[in-house]
Amino acid sequence: MTTDAEYLRRAILLAVDNVLAGAGGPFAAVVVRDGVIVGEGANSVTRTLDATAHGEVNAIRDACRRLGDFLLRGCTLYSSCEPCPMCLSACYWAQIDRVFFGATQEDAAAVGFGDEALYRQFSLPTDERSLPASGLLRVEAQVPFQTWLNSKLRVEYGALPIS
Amino acid sequence: MTTDAEYLRRAILLAVDNVLAGAGGPFAAVVVRDGVIVGEGANSVTRTLDATAHGEVNAIRDACRRLGDFLLRGCTLYSSCEPCPMCLSACYWAQIDRVFFGATQEDAAAVGFGDEALYRQFSLPTDERSLPASGLLRVEAQVPFQTWLNSKLRVEYGALPIS
Repeated sequence: MTTDAEYLRRAILLAVDNVLAGAGGPFAAVVVRDGVIVGEGANSVTRTLDATAHGEVNAIRDACRRLGDFLLRGCTLYSSCEPCPMCLSACYWAQIDRVFFGATQEDAAAVGFGDEALYRQFSLPTDERSLPASGLLRVEAQVPFQTWLNSKLRVEYGALPIS
Repeated sequence: MTTDAEYLRRAILLAVDNVLAGAGGPFAAVVVRDGVIVGEGANSVTRTLDATAHGEVNAIRDACRRLGDFLLRGCTLYSSCEPCPMCLSACYWAQIDRVFFGATQEDAAAVGFGDEALYRQFSLPTDERSLPASGLLRVEAQVPFQTWLNSKLRVEYGALPIS
């Protein structure tokens, strides 16, 4: 029986290997279901030139691919570091059951990463955030939704079991 | 001179087309730099079996690929709907300058999407969130960071110009 600590150690090891290989940042994650590793990923932002290629996102994409499912219900994600808001949200969208992490967002900040600052943005009112975001054409923008509701090709997703 | 409204209309059109093609959810985005579209993406969660394949993430990935850069400084993102926390975070990591969106998170909620509920999770203390996340092995988890600080292969990224 592999323990939570052992899966997390695997994620930490992958993060170290990733740095030693010069393949990206010091972050990696492992996705486990029913005692089996079903996805792994290490940060590849600078190697694959993809701002979204964090360890957890890569691990989730890998698990989705291997399991042939856009939902990862029943899975636990082990990350070498506390997931940033992007990666935590990805866990919600994939409906992952549980997360274990090693280092904290404060630890990541101490070595130069913006995770903690990004979390702070979410506690600010929209108009006080550093990244200006403005609404426009709200009426026209309902057309995709109406098209969706009327579509016979619709494959449901995107509801979340949270309130 | 293409206006913000016109770029946003393009994103809305891509979202409609995406639904009509049965290719995914009713969301799409366009990335623009210096008056040129440098990235486009529509939601492909159910088609590509990837929980992270939202319209904005796909557009950011496309722009990164086309521009050969993991940063999208000087770019504006136009999204058919207000970016969810995952996509908004992706905009921060890519250092996108500005976001315009059509529908709101409330509009998305009205047709069954969890965006608004997910935003609410970020306003809760960690231990009150629906997705349990626990820290473990914090000391061991510093090793990737120490390896990173000592690496000659390090390619810097992940700092954010926010406080």
